[in-house]
Amino acid sequence: MKISAVRVTPIAIKDPALLNAAGVHEPFGLRSIIEVVGANGMVGLGETYGDAPVLGLLTRAAPSLVGLSAFDVNGMLARLKALAPQVSTGHVEMELAPGSLASNLVTSAFSAFEVAFMDLQARTLGIPLVELLGGAVRDKVSYSAYLFYKWDASVDPEYAPDPYGEAVNAAQIVQQARKMIDQYGFESIKLKAGVFDPMEEADAILALKAAFPNQPLRIDPNSNWSMATSLKVADKLRGSLEYYEDPTPTLEGMAELHKATGMPLASNMVVTNWAELKRSIELNSVQILLSDHHFWGGLRATQALAQTCQTFGLGLSMHSNSHLGISLMAMTHLAASVQHLSYACDTHYPWQSDEVLVGGKVPIVDGCVHLTNKPGLGVELDQDKLTELHEAFKVCRIRTRNDVAQMQRYRPEWKQVKPRF
Amino acid sequence: MKISAVRVTPIAIKDPALLNAAGVHEPFGLRSIIEVVGANGMVGLGETYGDAPVLGLLTRAAPSLVGLSAFDVNGMLARLKALAPQVSTGHVEMELAPGSLASNLVTSAFSAFEVAFMDLQARTLGIPLVELLGGAVRDKVSYSAYLFYKWDASVDPEYAPDPYGEAVNAAQIVQQARKMIDQYGFESIKLKAGVFDPMEEADAILALKAAFPNQPLRIDPNSNWSMATSLKVADKLRGSLEYYEDPTPTLEGMAELHKATGMPLASNMVVTNWAELKRSIELNSVQILLSDHHFWGGLRATQALAQTCQTFGLGLSMHSNSHLGISLMAMTHLAASVQHLSYACDTHYPWQSDEVLVGGKVPIVDGCVHLTNKPGLGVELDQDKLTELHEAFKVCRIRTRNDVAQMQRYRPEWKQVKPRF
Ligand SMILES: [Mg+2]
Ligand SMILES: [Mg+2]
Repeated sequence: MKISAVRVTPIAIKDPALLNAAGVHEPFGLRSIIEVVGANGMVGLGETYGDAPVLGLLTRAAPSLVGLSAFDVNGMLARLKALAPQVSTGHVEMELAPGSLASNLVTSAFSAFEVAFMDLQARTLGIPLVELLGGAVRDKVSYSAYLFYKWDASVDPEYAPDPYGEAVNAAQIVQQARKMIDQYGFESIKLKAGVFDPMEEADAILALKAAFPNQPLRIDPNSNWSMATSLKVADKLRGSLEYYEDPTPTLEGMAELHKATGMPLASNMVVTNWAELKRSIELNSVQILLSDHHFWGGLRATQALAQTCQTFGLGLSMHSNSHLGISLMAMTHLAASVQHLSYACDTHYPWQSDEVLVGGKVPIVDGCVHLTNKPGLGVELDQDKLTELHEAFKVCRIRTRNDVAQMQRYRPEWKQVKPRF
Repeated sequence: MKISAVRVTPIAIKDPALLNAAGVHEPFGLRSIIEVVGANGMVGLGETYGDAPVLGLLTRAAPSLVGLSAFDVNGMLARLKALAPQVSTGHVEMELAPGSLASNLVTSAFSAFEVAFMDLQARTLGIPLVELLGGAVRDKVSYSAYLFYKWDASVDPEYAPDPYGEAVNAAQIVQQARKMIDQYGFESIKLKAGVFDPMEEADAILALKAAFPNQPLRIDPNSNWSMATSLKVADKLRGSLEYYEDPTPTLEGMAELHKATGMPLASNMVVTNWAELKRSIELNSVQILLSDHHFWGGLRATQALAQTCQTFGLGLSMHSNSHLGISLMAMTHLAASVQHLSYACDTHYPWQSDEVLVGGKVPIVDGCVHLTNKPGLGVELDQDKLTELHEAFKVCRIRTRNDVAQMQRYRPEWKQVKPRF
């Protein structure tokens, strides 16, 4: 079944003032929405980063995919490789969204198109996408509550108000967790750290432990801690964490930390591609890999990654960036197909108020997204919403995510420091 | 699309008196032919080992697969696991066909059904199976001339006459190569060794090199050589081999040999599953993995294996056992989809005179099997031939391959010795 058109639409989605190691989320996150139209009139959907480097490649590639079979992802890859730019993005903080790294650009673009190709395949067949991934080993996928230190929207009129308000201390983090869990039923909790004094952040984990004694807990300072700090926090949180996510930079640093503490370390920062995975296995840097189909090469590649993790005795969980429901459903179909992916997956989804789907936001019930019997990803694009969010993109000043520059608006002396603590 | 019936038919196919480390091929090889019938009336085909342990599991599993979606290979795996026997095959020489090892039995059965499920999927879609594997990166797949020391059929009336006659020395091996290459156009050559004096077998490689100076050469004594012998042959053949296949037993032995010689070692004997692959990577035992979808878990798993090999800098080629055209086409569709599989694949196909396909044997032209645009594997089952070969199975005395016992018919003093030389 031939592809008759490929549309790539950049959108800007409202994002709260979420704090992290680099600085603060900008008031808009960028995403690219992919539509791959088959000769049968059906449309396969994909969603990925909207930053200029990825968007540029997606946009240039789109017309070259017309005429390919919707099954020919190898042919699609060949066309992407022919178009791949040799430029660097030049933005250090893009490490937070590894798919925006120049080195991973073709893989990211491939990932986005692969999902849309497979969605089109599944719609053509009239079956849920998970069936093309080998069938569901579970009928729902668990996600974790993803807590952020954050400012209230009042910090800047560019931010839209959000229901969570400020969270700059442990008590407010517990409050945020309570609100999010009340609404979505999440059964595990992740705290994005690397923002305040590390011992204060560790205290927030202990406060969460007291408030939610049966919920697995994770902390992720985005490599913003030195070895000494990572060790101190490890001492404090021993026995309180499901896993310890990217405390400190480099594969060597993570290996040293694991050797010193014996704690299971997870990463989406030091292992972002196959070469880094090889090195991590050699060094025993990372014990739990945080997969992400957006930059690992799509759904099938993530299944191969799961096999590699299983072979080498690594755990497997799932990373997220700010995203909408197409990404959420791709993550869900993938996670439902992989026996070895047994942790609750990360998702930023509760932080997003915008959506491009007919019917609005995908429901999260008891912390889970449920698979349905609908064909493909099981969701439909709302063209009016897409147009609206594309208009938002057009007037938005942001073209490449830059949490450092955003923070400098409020703290002119702010610098990217790695690690800061 | 639901599965309405699954048929497993054991067949016996004529095999010449091919010599190897264990002994000699019996006059019949056993295969199982799988037919997975969809509710749409279409039939997906698979082919695998016909030895009693695998056949037993396939036969017991078949009725339990009815009602599954043809896409639900994960569901199929769950049903196989529920049925898996805890027994050992008890036959040492089954190492020549690793899929018959008890430990690999579920994986072998899964592999066979997976191909048939995917064939049915592709037929339902009206597309070649390779498209479900991501699309073809090449439109034809190269195979190697697979030379054997062998006896003429006159050794025993149970053997059917074959066009190649005797080959018990270097001159006859060169003659065999010439005949096989004249007919099929193979551009690389593999010699099954481990039969005669190792230095004589090395001389046969040198004779092949003189006769076919531009053809890559391989030698495979099936782990039948000691370290000392493997080193002596390595000295003699340095610079004459594309790769050195399974000269000596164990992952440790292969690692030691590679360290001593620097020669690229290939294996389908010491690396037959993911656990062994992990160990091989740790020890640097094997530099080229000889994949085989029949025992690695099917087509998708072999694609994941290719990714692992690429990640760890291992080469990838393809192993074969005696097989007919369904297996050949599965190997061809798979190999066509995997960029990283860049060696000519092994095949026993020229040694088989029987076939179950409409139109008879699959053509090999210029050493290659060409993909076509026909749906699925692109071949159809000849029910009359299937019945005929199933009758041959019924009257055949063999139920589990035993090259040792077959050799003992002619050499009563023969024993399984590892390594023999
Ligand atoms: Mg992270
Ligand atoms: Mg071999």
